[in-house]
Amino acid sequence: MIQDRMMEMTELFSDAYFMREALKEALRAYDAGEVPVGAVVVCEQRIIARGHNLTECLNDVTAHAEMQAITAAANHLGGKYLNQCTLYVTLEPCTMCAGALYWARPGKLVYGAADDKRGFTLVPAPLLHPKTIVTKGVEAQAVTQMMQSFFSAKRRHL
Amino acid sequence: MIQDRMMEMTELFSDAYFMREALKEALRAYDAGEVPVGAVVVCEQRIIARGHNLTECLNDVTAHAEMQAITAAANHLGGKYLNQCTLYVTLEPCTMCAGALYWARPGKLVYGAADDKRGFTLVPAPLLHPKTIVTKGVEAQAVTQMMQSFFSAKRRHL
Repeated sequence: MIQDRMMEMTELFSDAYFMREALKEALRAYDAGEVPVGAVVVCEQRIIARGHNLTECLNDVTAHAEMQAITAAANHLGGKYLNQCTLYVTLEPCTMCAGALYWARPGKLVYGAADDKRGFTLVPAPLLHPKTIVTKGVEAQAVTQMMQSFFSAKRRHL
Repeated sequence: MIQDRMMEMTELFSDAYFMREALKEALRAYDAGEVPVGAVVVCEQRIIARGHNLTECLNDVTAHAEMQAITAAANHLGGKYLNQCTLYVTLEPCTMCAGALYWARPGKLVYGAADDKRGFTLVPAPLLHPKTIVTKGVEAQAVTQMMQSFFSAKRRHL
Protein backbone atom coordinates (compact mmCIF):
# COMPACT_ATOMS: atom_id res chain seq x y z
CA MET A 1 0.00 0.00 0.00
CA ILE A 2 2.71 2.43 1.04
CA GLN A 3 4.81 1.23 -1.90
CA ASP A 4 1.88 1.94 -4.24
CA ARG A 5 1.52 5.47 -2.88
CA MET A 6 5.26 6.07 -3.17
CA MET A 7 5.13 4.84 -6.75
CA GLU A 8 2.25 7.23 -7.44
CA MET A 9 4.20 10.12 -5.89
CA THR A 10 7.27 9.29 -7.93
CA GLU A 11 5.16 9.40 -11.07
CA LEU A 12 3.45 12.58 -9.92
CA PHE A 13 6.74 14.40 -9.48
CA SER A 14 8.31 13.25 -12.72
CA ASP A 15 10.25 15.46 -15.14
CA ALA A 16 7.19 15.32 -17.43
CA TYR A 17 4.98 16.63 -14.62
CA PHE A 18 7.19 19.67 -13.96
CA MET A 19 7.68 20.26 -17.68
CA ARG A 20 3.91 20.47 -18.03
CA GLU A 21 4.01 23.17 -15.33
CA ALA A 22 6.63 25.00 -17.40
CA LEU A 23 4.30 24.59 -20.40
CA LYS A 24 1.54 26.34 -18.42
CA GLU A 25 3.96 29.28 -18.03
CA ALA A 26 4.71 29.16 -21.76
CA LEU A 27 0.97 29.37 -22.42
CA ARG A 28 0.82 32.57 -20.37
CA ALA A 29 3.51 34.05 -22.62
CA TYR A 30 1.60 32.81 -25.70
CA ASP A 31 -1.60 34.50 -24.55
CA ALA A 32 0.31 37.76 -24.01
CA GLY A 33 1.74 37.67 -27.54
CA GLU A 34 5.21 36.71 -26.34
CA VAL A 35 7.32 33.90 -27.84
CA PRO A 36 5.91 31.06 -25.70
CA VAL A 37 8.69 29.89 -23.42
CA GLY A 38 8.08 28.99 -19.79
CA ALA A 39 10.21 27.81 -16.87
CA VAL A 40 9.86 26.55 -13.31
CA VAL A 41 12.46 25.94 -10.61
CA VAL A 42 11.92 22.91 -8.39
CA CYS A 43 13.53 22.30 -5.00
CA GLU A 44 12.73 19.13 -3.02
CA GLN A 45 9.83 18.38 -5.38
CA ARG A 46 8.24 21.79 -4.80
CA ILE A 47 7.98 24.54 -7.37
CA ILE A 48 9.69 27.54 -5.78
CA ALA A 49 9.73 29.85 -8.81
CA ARG A 50 7.99 30.33 -12.13
CA GLY A 51 8.75 32.52 -15.11
CA HIS A 52 7.78 33.13 -18.71
CA ASN A 53 9.17 35.17 -21.53
CA LEU A 54 8.38 38.87 -21.07
CA THR A 55 10.70 40.49 -23.61
CA GLU A 56 7.93 42.34 -25.49
CA CYS A 57 5.92 43.28 -22.44
CA LEU A 58 8.96 44.65 -20.56
CA ASN A 59 10.74 45.89 -23.68
CA ASP A 60 13.80 44.04 -22.40
CA VAL A 61 15.84 41.45 -24.27
CA THR A 62 17.09 40.00 -20.98
CA ALA A 63 13.58 39.06 -19.78
CA HIS A 64 13.69 35.41 -20.89
CA ALA A 65 11.75 32.81 -18.91
CA GLU A 66 14.89 31.29 -17.40
CA MET A 67 16.21 34.66 -16.22
CA GLN A 68 12.92 35.44 -14.48
CA ALA A 69 12.87 31.99 -12.89
CA ILE A 70 16.52 32.14 -11.72
CA THR A 71 16.00 35.56 -10.13
CA ALA A 72 12.72 34.48 -8.49
CA ALA A 73 14.23 31.23 -7.16
CA ALA A 74 17.23 33.01 -5.63
CA ASN A 75 14.84 35.51 -4.08
CA HIS A 76 12.79 32.65 -2.59
CA LEU A 77 15.85 30.83 -1.26
CA GLY A 78 17.66 33.93 0.00
CA GLY A 79 20.83 32.72 -1.74
CA LYS A 80 22.30 33.06 -5.22
CA TYR A 81 23.08 29.40 -5.91
CA LEU A 82 20.53 26.86 -7.09
CA ASN A 83 22.62 23.70 -6.57
CA GLN A 84 19.73 21.99 -4.75
CA CYS A 85 17.31 22.85 -7.57
CA THR A 86 16.22 21.69 -11.00
CA LEU A 87 15.33 24.26 -13.63
CA TYR A 88 12.71 23.11 -16.16
CA VAL A 89 12.35 25.17 -19.32
CA THR A 90 10.26 24.38 -22.37
CA LEU A 91 12.87 25.44 -24.96
CA GLU A 92 16.62 24.89 -24.98
CA PRO A 93 18.26 27.93 -23.33
CA CYS A 94 20.12 30.49 -25.46
CA THR A 95 23.74 31.45 -24.71
CA MET A 96 22.63 34.30 -22.40
CA CYS A 97 20.49 31.95 -20.30
CA ALA A 98 23.13 29.21 -20.34
CA GLY A 99 25.63 31.82 -19.09
CA ALA A 100 23.20 32.76 -16.30
CA LEU A 101 22.80 29.06 -15.46
CA TYR A 102 26.58 28.78 -15.22
CA TRP A 103 26.54 31.38 -12.45
CA ALA A 104 23.40 29.97 -10.76
CA ARG A 105 24.73 26.38 -10.81
CA PRO A 106 21.45 24.41 -10.67
CA GLY A 107 21.96 20.73 -9.89
CA LYS A 108 19.93 19.80 -12.96
CA LEU A 109 18.58 21.43 -16.11
CA VAL A 110 15.68 19.85 -17.98
CA TYR A 111 14.56 21.29 -21.28
CA GLY A 112 11.88 20.32 -23.77
CA ALA A 113 12.53 21.05 -27.45
CA ALA A 114 15.93 21.90 -28.94
CA ASP A 115 16.44 25.41 -30.32
CA ASP A 116 18.15 24.89 -33.66
CA LYS A 117 18.87 28.61 -34.09
CA ARG A 118 20.04 29.97 -30.74
CA GLY A 119 20.34 26.94 -28.45
CA PHE A 120 23.44 26.90 -26.24
CA THR A 121 24.44 23.42 -27.43
CA LEU A 122 25.25 24.93 -30.84
CA VAL A 123 28.27 26.61 -29.20
CA PRO A 124 31.26 24.24 -29.31
CA ALA A 125 32.23 24.80 -25.66
CA PRO A 126 30.67 23.87 -22.32
CA LEU A 127 28.64 26.90 -21.19
CA LEU A 128 26.87 25.41 -18.16
CA HIS A 129 28.47 24.76 -14.77
CA PRO A 130 30.23 21.37 -14.83
CA LYS A 131 28.08 20.17 -11.91
CA THR A 132 24.78 20.78 -13.75
CA ILE A 133 23.27 17.56 -15.14
CA VAL A 134 21.22 17.99 -18.33
CA THR A 135 18.12 16.11 -19.49
CA LYS A 136 16.51 17.09 -22.77
CA GLY A 137 13.53 16.19 -24.95
CA VAL A 138 10.94 16.08 -22.13
CA GLU A 139 7.47 16.88 -23.57
CA ALA A 140 9.31 18.14 -26.64
CA GLN A 141 6.38 17.45 -28.98
CA ALA A 142 3.99 19.65 -26.96
CA VAL A 143 6.61 22.43 -26.88
CA THR A 144 7.21 22.22 -30.63
CA GLN A 145 3.48 22.30 -31.33
CA MET A 146 3.05 25.42 -29.18
CA MET A 147 5.99 27.18 -30.87
CA GLN A 148 4.76 26.27 -34.36
CA SER A 149 1.24 27.43 -33.54
CA PHE A 150 2.61 30.76 -32.24
CA PHE A 151 4.80 31.49 -35.24
CA SER A 152 2.22 30.41 -37.84
CA ALA A 153 -0.34 32.71 -36.15
CA LYS A 154 2.26 35.53 -36.23
CA ARG A 155 2.84 34.96 -39.95
CA ARG A 156 -0.92 35.11 -40.65
CA HIS A 157 -1.02 38.54 -39.02
CA LEU A 158 1.90 39.98 -41.00
CA MET B 1 38.26 78.58 -33.63
CA ILE B 2 35.30 76.36 -34.42
CA GLN B 3 37.70 73.66 -35.49
CA ASP B 4 39.50 73.95 -32.16
CA ARG B 5 36.24 73.58 -30.26
CA MET B 6 35.24 70.61 -32.37
CA MET B 7 38.59 69.02 -31.68
CA GLU B 8 38.08 69.61 -27.96
CA MET B 9 34.61 68.04 -28.12
CA THR B 10 35.93 65.03 -30.00
CA GLU B 11 38.53 64.52 -27.29
CA LEU B 12 35.96 65.08 -24.60
CA PHE B 13 33.71 62.35 -25.96
CA SER B 14 36.40 59.76 -26.56
CA ASP B 15 36.19 56.08 -25.68
CA ALA B 16 38.54 56.81 -22.76
CA TYR B 17 36.16 59.49 -21.47
CA PHE B 18 33.17 57.16 -21.40
CA MET B 19 35.25 54.31 -19.99
CA ARG B 20 36.18 56.58 -17.10
CA GLU B 21 32.44 57.06 -16.54
CA ALA B 22 32.07 53.26 -16.48
CA LEU B 23 34.95 53.19 -13.98
CA LYS B 24 32.98 55.55 -11.73
CA GLU B 25 30.19 52.96 -11.78
CA ALA B 26 32.71 50.22 -10.99
CA LEU B 27 33.85 52.27 -7.98
CA ARG B 28 30.27 52.33 -6.69
CA ALA B 29 30.26 48.53 -6.85
CA TYR B 30 33.66 48.45 -5.12
CA ASP B 31 32.42 50.65 -2.27
CA ALA B 32 29.40 48.34 -1.83
CA GLY B 33 31.64 45.27 -1.55
CA GLU B 34 30.68 44.02 -5.01
CA VAL B 35 33.17 42.81 -7.64
CA PRO B 36 33.91 46.22 -9.19
CA VAL B 37 32.49 46.19 -12.70
CA GLY B 38 30.70 49.19 -14.19
CA ALA B 39 29.00 50.01 -17.48
CA VAL B 40 27.45 52.93 -19.32
CA VAL B 41 25.40 53.05 -22.51
CA VAL B 42 26.02 56.01 -24.82
CA CYS B 43 23.71 57.23 -27.59
CA GLU B 44 24.65 60.27 -29.69
CA GLN B 45 27.45 61.13 -27.24
CA ARG B 46 25.08 61.17 -24.27
CA ILE B 47 25.06 58.64 -21.44
CA ILE B 48 21.53 57.22 -21.42
CA ALA B 49 22.08 54.41 -18.90
CA ARG B 50 24.44 53.37 -16.15
CA GLY B 51 24.89 50.16 -14.24
CA HIS B 52 27.20 48.38 -11.85
CA ASN B 53 27.47 44.88 -10.52
CA LEU B 54 24.81 44.18 -7.90
CA THR B 55 24.99 40.39 -7.58
CA GLU B 56 25.66 40.37 -3.82
CA CYS B 57 23.33 43.22 -2.96
CA LEU B 58 20.42 41.75 -4.97
CA ASN B 59 21.37 38.13 -4.29
CA ASP B 60 21.04 37.59 -8.02
CA VAL B 61 23.66 36.11 -10.34
CA THR B 62 22.07 37.86 -13.33
CA ALA B 63 22.65 41.36 -11.88
CA HIS B 64 25.88 42.09 -13.78
CA ALA B 65 26.70 45.69 -14.74
CA GLU B 66 25.98 45.08 -18.44
CA MET B 67 22.57 43.53 -17.73
CA GLN B 68 21.54 46.52 -15.60
CA ALA B 69 22.78 48.93 -18.28
CA ILE B 70 21.06 47.09 -21.17
CA THR B 71 17.74 47.02 -19.31
CA ALA B 72 18.03 50.70 -18.29
CA ALA B 73 19.00 51.80 -21.82
CA ALA B 74 16.06 49.96 -23.41
CA ASN B 75 13.80 51.52 -20.79
CA HIS B 76 15.14 54.98 -21.66
CA LEU B 77 14.78 54.46 -25.40
CA GLY B 78 11.40 52.73 -25.25
CA GLY B 79 12.74 50.00 -27.54
CA LYS B 80 14.62 46.75 -27.09
CA TYR B 81 17.43 47.28 -29.60
CA LEU B 82 20.54 49.34 -28.92
CA ASN B 83 21.87 49.52 -32.50
CA GLN B 84 22.40 53.30 -32.20
CA CYS B 85 24.30 52.86 -28.94
CA THR B 86 27.74 51.99 -27.60
CA LEU B 87 28.03 49.95 -24.42
CA TYR B 88 31.15 50.65 -22.35
CA VAL B 89 32.04 48.12 -19.67
CA THR B 90 35.17 48.01 -17.53
CA LEU B 91 35.68 44.23 -17.74
CA GLU B 92 35.25 41.90 -20.70
CA PRO B 93 31.67 40.55 -20.62
CA CYS B 94 31.01 36.94 -19.56
CA THR B 95 29.04 34.55 -21.80
CA MET B 96 25.73 35.56 -20.15
CA CYS B 97 26.33 39.24 -20.87
CA ALA B 98 27.65 38.53 -24.38
CA GLY B 99 24.45 36.54 -24.99
CA ALA B 100 22.38 39.50 -23.76
CA LEU B 101 24.41 41.79 -26.05
CA TYR B 102 23.59 39.47 -28.96
CA TRP B 103 19.90 40.15 -28.38
CA ALA B 104 20.36 43.89 -27.67
CA ARG B 105 22.54 44.41 -30.77
CA PRO B 106 24.52 47.53 -29.73
CA GLY B 107 26.37 49.17 -32.61
CA LYS B 108 29.59 49.04 -30.61
CA LEU B 109 30.97 47.38 -27.50
CA VAL B 110 33.99 48.86 -25.73
CA TYR B 111 35.56 47.01 -22.84
CA GLY B 112 38.55 47.70 -20.62
CA ALA B 113 40.48 44.73 -19.26
CA ALA B 114 40.20 41.19 -20.57
CA ASP B 115 38.67 38.56 -18.27
CA ASP B 116 40.98 35.58 -18.54
CA LYS B 117 38.61 33.32 -16.60
CA ARG B 118 35.07 34.00 -17.85
CA GLY B 119 35.47 36.42 -20.77
CA PHE B 120 33.28 35.68 -23.79
CA THR B 121 36.26 35.68 -26.16
CA LEU B 122 37.44 32.43 -24.52
CA VAL B 123 34.50 30.70 -26.24
CA PRO B 124 35.54 29.55 -29.73
CA ALA B 125 32.40 30.89 -31.43
CA PRO B 126 31.03 34.38 -32.16
CA LEU B 127 28.61 35.20 -29.32
CA LEU B 128 27.88 38.86 -30.12
CA HIS B 129 25.61 40.11 -32.89
CA PRO B 130 27.58 40.25 -36.17
CA LYS B 131 26.82 43.97 -36.48
CA THR B 132 28.41 44.85 -33.12
CA ILE B 133 31.90 46.35 -33.50
CA VAL B 134 34.29 45.63 -30.61
CA THR B 135 37.05 47.80 -29.15
CA LYS B 136 39.03 46.48 -26.20
CA GLY B 137 41.82 47.55 -23.85
CA VAL B 138 40.49 51.07 -23.17
CA GLU B 139 41.71 52.25 -19.73
CA ALA B 140 42.62 48.60 -19.11
CA GLN B 141 45.35 49.45 -16.60
CA ALA B 142 42.98 51.42 -14.34
CA VAL B 143 40.45 48.55 -14.51
CA THR B 144 43.08 45.95 -13.65
CA GLN B 145 44.33 48.02 -10.73
CA MET B 146 40.81 48.35 -9.33
CA MET B 147 40.15 44.60 -9.69
CA GLN B 148 43.49 43.69 -8.07
CA SER B 149 42.89 46.11 -5.21
CA PHE B 150 39.42 44.61 -4.64
CA PHE B 151 40.54 40.99 -4.60
CA SER B 152 43.65 41.61 -2.50
CA ALA B 153 41.49 43.43 0.08
CA LYS B 154 39.07 40.47 0.01
CA ARG B 155 41.91 38.04 0.66
CA ARG B 156 43.15 40.10 3.60
CA HIS B 157 39.69 39.77 5.19
CA LEU B 158 39.48 36.00 4.76
